[in-house]
Amino acid sequence: MYHDLIAKNFLNKLSNTWLEKLDDSAVLEVGGKIAFTTDSYVVSPIFFPGGDIGRLAVCGTVNDLAMSGASPLYLSLSFILEEGFSTTDLERIVDSIKEGAKEAGVEIVTGDTKVVNKGSVDKIFINTSGIGIVPEEVNISGSNAQPGDVIILSGSIGEHGITIMSQREGLKFSSPLESDCAPLNSLVANMLDVCNDIHCLRDPTRGGLATTLNEFAAQSKVGILIEEDTIKVTPPVQAICELLGLDPLYIANEGKLVAIAPPSKVKRLIEQMRQNKYGVGAVVIGRVVAEHLGTVVMKTGLGTSRIIRMLTGDLLPRIC
Amino acid sequence: MYHDLIAKNFLNKLSNTWLEKLDDSAVLEVGGKIAFTTDSYVVSPIFFPGGDIGRLAVCGTVNDLAMSGASPLYLSLSFILEEGFSTTDLERIVDSIKEGAKEAGVEIVTGDTKVVNKGSVDKIFINTSGIGIVPEEVNISGSNAQPGDVIILSGSIGEHGITIMSQREGLKFSSPLESDCAPLNSLVANMLDVCNDIHCLRDPTRGGLATTLNEFAAQSKVGILIEEDTIKVTPPVQAICELLGLDPLYIANEGKLVAIAPPSKVKRLIEQMRQNKYGVGAVVIGRVVAEHLGTVVMKTGLGTSRIIRMLTGDLLPRIC
Repeated sequence: MYHDLIAKNFLNKLSNTWLEKLDDSAVLEVGGKIAFTTDSYVVSPIFFPGGDIGRLAVCGTVNDLAMSGASPLYLSLSFILEEGFSTTDLERIVDSIKEGAKEAGVEIVTGDTKVVNKGSVDKIFINTSGIGIVPEEVNISGSNAQPGDVIILSGSIGEHGITIMSQREGLKFSSPLESDCAPLNSLVANMLDVCNDIHCLRDPTRGGLATTLNEFAAQSKVGILIEEDTIKVTPPVQAICELLGLDPLYIANEGKLVAIAPPSKVKRLIEQMRQNKYGVGAVVIGRVVAEHLGTVVMKTGLGTSRIIRMLTGDLLPRIC
Repeated sequence: MYHDLIAKNFLNKLSNTWLEKLDDSAVLEVGGKIAFTTDSYVVSPIFFPGGDIGRLAVCGTVNDLAMSGASPLYLSLSFILEEGFSTTDLERIVDSIKEGAKEAGVEIVTGDTKVVNKGSVDKIFINTSGIGIVPEEVNISGSNAQPGDVIILSGSIGEHGITIMSQREGLKFSSPLESDCAPLNSLVANMLDVCNDIHCLRDPTRGGLATTLNEFAAQSKVGILIEEDTIKVTPPVQAICELLGLDPLYIANEGKLVAIAPPSKVKRLIEQMRQNKYGVGAVVIGRVVAEHLGTVVMKTGLGTSRIIRMLTGDLLPRIC
């Protein structure tokens, strides 16, 4: 039954020279600096406007690799399925994984499937881990920001989180609203083409832009100053945030990135990012300063200053 | 809260240069042929005689790497926790992961934690993925068995599966019974020291020895002939198998391996294996033949022959 399930649903669709060998590990030829990352995906609902748990599992891990400056090459894929989970839904998810992997240019080289009894898991959870190659001269880390550096955001914020919440709450809007879930490795590759000394890169997922900027401030022991007016929020996201009393700065994204780079490179970077479909909305949102170390400050539209803290209090579970 | 959970439970215990960076991917220096594998662990109960879900998650992935001839180096670690999961239990599990990683000589370099609402997962699931280096001259695969090759088993079978089943059924025995859960990479390294042309290696986990041998027969398109009398089953495992009407050939192991090697190397291999604490019970259990291709045949203690098929029918869920 396991062998059948694997053969029918995965091997037929995802077939490649590694998976066909049916060995316990994939053997790969790589060299130099590699990036390695892992993420488990537990999003609910599993299908949502703009994506599904399968696309999310590919994009999320591809993006984690890309954020270390790596070219993502290989993914592992591990399913935990609830007994009786719809095979139609599983097929849709596997198709979506295949399409996402194709778009990102990565191969799924090893996998695992566990079926657990009804009630032990809610439908389906997916883990993807990934390997990529980091160019020798690239050295990106959340701890590399320096005073004087400029902060770039690749587009509008909050679409993924607000889409998931709207689905759960049954909110309907006239304006289209969908998750921004996307693989960002081509965008990062384009950026590295014009600037190989990007200092920090991160995709503001759980906890949103506010959390990513706070992580940078803490890891690099610097201050961060951003301007509210530069941060784009689409009208449906803004409307739902107001309705639910949420701050878009804390809402998860799945297709956006924040970059910190030396000021001399910023013009070229922004021009280059806007050529990529996932970076058309790229703008400078602020800079790194030598004051208020470890703290993120936002100049509001009214000209006042507000401290943007790390997300505390309740989690929104199962956003990704 | 997330940051606190991660800091308190994981970083303090598992701290190393990679995890301390708090970046999304670990950047590693490796080169040549690497092995990459993934497994999700959903075992129930999460604590059992001889191990727990944490030790299993380290050993299982280390063993998958070792079975491709790789020296396991780096693991990723991803938790899915049910809201309200006992922090004492989590600490015990993390300690066990740390100890298992130390025994196996691997570093945990990247991780992820998801907390899901009550009822969405049964307590805790863990995914570990792993990377290892395969020596250039080593070429191990389930498809490499050749007629004339000899089949070696590293010890007695069925302990892990029977331990888990006994725990679930509340069976008590006077004889000690515990899971064989162990990292086998040192055993494999010892074996490769005396024979770098081992053809096949696999740990007979889910589906047991019978399933592993059937996989080898199918992947290599050869026949496999084993002798029942050579396969050791401990008295408590034998007793419970008889009680529950189970065949130990199909019961999961977590600290045993099956090797297929050229006949000229077998004496040295067995001697070498018996020097390692996880290979003291190493014996020859059969050979690869050019007849009954794709099929496993066992000569029974009574002198008759029995076809050993792949496990079909019901799965035993959550054995690993």
